[in-house]
Amino acid sequence: MAHISFDSSALTKFVHDNELSEIQPLVTAADKELREGTGAGNDFRGFLDLPVAYDKDEFARIKAAAKKVQGNSEVFVAIGIGGSYLGAQAAIDFLNPNFYNQQANRSVPEVYFAGNSISGSYLHDLVQMIGDRDFSINVISKSGTTTEPSIAFRVLKAKLIAKYGAAGAKERIFATTDKAKGALKTEADAEGYEEFVVPDDIGGRFSVLSAVGLLPIAVAGGDIDQLMQGAADARSEYTNPDVTKNEAYRYAALRNILYRKGFTTELLENYEPNLRLFGEWWKQLMGESEGKDQKGIYPSSANFSTDLHSLGQYIQEGLRNLFETVVKIDDAPNDVTIPDDDKNLDGLGYLAGKSMNYVNDKAYHGVVLAHTDGGVPVMTVNVPKQDAYSLGYTIYFFEIAVAISGYLNGINPFNQPGVEAYKKNMFALLGRQGYEELTKELTARLNK
Amino acid sequence: MAHISFDSSALTKFVHDNELSEIQPLVTAADKELREGTGAGNDFRGFLDLPVAYDKDEFARIKAAAKKVQGNSEVFVAIGIGGSYLGAQAAIDFLNPNFYNQQANRSVPEVYFAGNSISGSYLHDLVQMIGDRDFSINVISKSGTTTEPSIAFRVLKAKLIAKYGAAGAKERIFATTDKAKGALKTEADAEGYEEFVVPDDIGGRFSVLSAVGLLPIAVAGGDIDQLMQGAADARSEYTNPDVTKNEAYRYAALRNILYRKGFTTELLENYEPNLRLFGEWWKQLMGESEGKDQKGIYPSSANFSTDLHSLGQYIQEGLRNLFETVVKIDDAPNDVTIPDDDKNLDGLGYLAGKSMNYVNDKAYHGVVLAHTDGGVPVMTVNVPKQDAYSLGYTIYFFEIAVAISGYLNGINPFNQPGVEAYKKNMFALLGRQGYEELTKELTARLNK
Repeated sequence: MAHISFDSSALTKFVHDNELSEIQPLVTAADKELREGTGAGNDFRGFLDLPVAYDKDEFARIKAAAKKVQGNSEVFVAIGIGGSYLGAQAAIDFLNPNFYNQQANRSVPEVYFAGNSISGSYLHDLVQMIGDRDFSINVISKSGTTTEPSIAFRVLKAKLIAKYGAAGAKERIFATTDKAKGALKTEADAEGYEEFVVPDDIGGRFSVLSAVGLLPIAVAGGDIDQLMQGAADARSEYTNPDVTKNEAYRYAALRNILYRKGFTTELLENYEPNLRLFGEWWKQLMGESEGKDQKGIYPSSANFSTDLHSLGQYIQEGLRNLFETVVKIDDAPNDVTIPDDDKNLDGLGYLAGKSMNYVNDKAYHGVVLAHTDGGVPVMTVNVPKQDAYSLGYTIYFFEIAVAISGYLNGINPFNQPGVEAYKKNMFALLGRQGYEELTKELTARLNK
Repeated sequence: MAHISFDSSALTKFVHDNELSEIQPLVTAADKELREGTGAGNDFRGFLDLPVAYDKDEFARIKAAAKKVQGNSEVFVAIGIGGSYLGAQAAIDFLNPNFYNQQANRSVPEVYFAGNSISGSYLHDLVQMIGDRDFSINVISKSGTTTEPSIAFRVLKAKLIAKYGAAGAKERIFATTDKAKGALKTEADAEGYEEFVVPDDIGGRFSVLSAVGLLPIAVAGGDIDQLMQGAADARSEYTNPDVTKNEAYRYAALRNILYRKGFTTELLENYEPNLRLFGEWWKQLMGESEGKDQKGIYPSSANFSTDLHSLGQYIQEGLRNLFETVVKIDDAPNDVTIPDDDKNLDGLGYLAGKSMNYVNDKAYHGVVLAHTDGGVPVMTVNVPKQDAYSLGYTIYFFEIAVAISGYLNGINPFNQPGVEAYKKNMFALLGRQGYEELTKELTARLNK
């Protein structure tokens, strides 16, 4: 039995019963591409077995490193961009209270992210906010040459050396990088930083359950054993190619059916503010896997009921090319009882003594009905608890779903050829060696 | 001369020269609807003159209230949803350093937002984080009966009374509500809370420059005089209906031209992390104004270069129905110089001694060229400085642009009929009096 459950019962108005059985042969073909490695991008299927096939020695070292950081640092900065931070950030938010960096009586360091933009203001403000406090850093980059994290690493490494000396700084730098080659690997070997591995056969957006995500999550107090166990159980669950048996595959099939009807934008939604970053992780996973060859579902996100008062009007009555997938927490970690008030001017009396999470749940059901009536298909991933086990399970659900979904749409779900385009232009405009011809061409276009 | 400047030079590949002149008669008609009040929703044009016609006495009281809160509170909580918090939150982020609530040596209270979701976890965690510190609240609701802020107000008011007694609590509650009627007005009159007005002729999403936004912005240290001055100067600037003279109208015209070519999703983008919430404000402004009658541009947002490593692949090569509008800060408030490194393993040596903001600017230019080449139209709003004057100017630019844009698409840009749909369902599912028939109907549907 699945730990999380996928609910497509609100789709009856949009997808006929026969459609799922008619797409089954394509799902079976996609499953074969994925499982037998006959599909495009077959070098990057390491995520499939990662929940059971991970390096147990490294896993123990991750826990030890997290313990060391917890013991000697008030602040921990994870340096990375794209898949090198989104999963960790999403998981840390998912597993901790709101405002976790600002809660009193913390037993773990505050955790921040750097190297995920080129804003000088951001890095300046981050450094100022850290102040004189003890800190450690985890630089996460397969190549060690990506512009954003490389800049942040230079700046924060210099700060560590100024504070702790060269020898002391080395004890506070953790490098997650290629196992054998690259700039960061070379530096880590030479300087003696503790090293962790970005696996060769796992793309960045699928890497949250590798050392890439695990070290920051563990530093923040996450139970990474349970995280992996949840993913491992999901791996066992989602093996049957039959969409009536495999909920992850059914989700993949249904979103492709909807896409072909003109529902080309998908919103991932939540009803808990600390799932917002899960939506950001999901947007990279889906958009970078599927958005290519001038096709693919555009991944958007929304936070409810918050955004029902901003995007709600559009969702209810705007252009009808949207569909929604809700990640719904069944049992949220904390709650507040709505107080009584004698005067009852606000008319909330009928809710006095009820819990906010009870009201939140009714809001969810009300929204599904309203949006369905408005012409927007809604699907739901019900997640029993907001804990590490459930998170691992949910991560795996979406990872395997997007692989099947990508093959169903006839693309390679594991590459990202378009990400280089802006980088080349940026290098040329910055006058980097080797880009002289492009520099000339782009400068001419900009000065036209 | 405009203080901010709108750049559509990258559109040449997508919009022919003749198109702007051919849409001019429609823009002139839309301008007439707006200025003469002959268009739909003409009761809600108060935002047009607000930057000069605001209540000067109330404005002085807002400053005095902010000073009082700054003197007696470590924490300030603004309670509101939709237009009752998005503008203030966007402005406070825009005007302050990153991590402003966590910077040492603050001279103003920490500012948080509540009543913008129904998550019990969020409100529990917020209350826990505030702890025993001195705090004040600003409850912002025209009716005083909206579910989310009403719940948060009950909970935080009870906390204030427990801490300060009934009399002390009244000194720490500021009510922004209807000038004459409604639940919150009645309570504020009875209890003697200081009151500020949500204007009758200004919709929530246009209300940031009224007391709705101004009090929280002022508490957080924002220069609200300069904010209003920027908006007032924009009001003078954007009066000519001629799209070759009026940049806000040109933006409105171009996005309608693009929409009619099938570019149905617009991304608002920035290159500064503390502009993320500006994007959220913009999404309500545009989506709620235009998404109706089964049409309208879907408003999305992205933060660069961050999201070039997540959404970047999709934007570069996915389905070609996207266009982008960048809010580009010319002179960011802080910066970091990229350090030298003898070994230069990361290959960043060519940037040593350069500032991050310089690199960020080249990234922007590289992205415009790359995305344009990939088939995505890009427009830019250049904002000289990240200060209150520029923010007021930029807010007015988008407000007047969406009014013209909405009329150009033949809708009422000032109503939001779809927002009630989910609320009715929620009330029915919660068993609220007066919804008995709907309760029966929806319960039957859910149990089917």
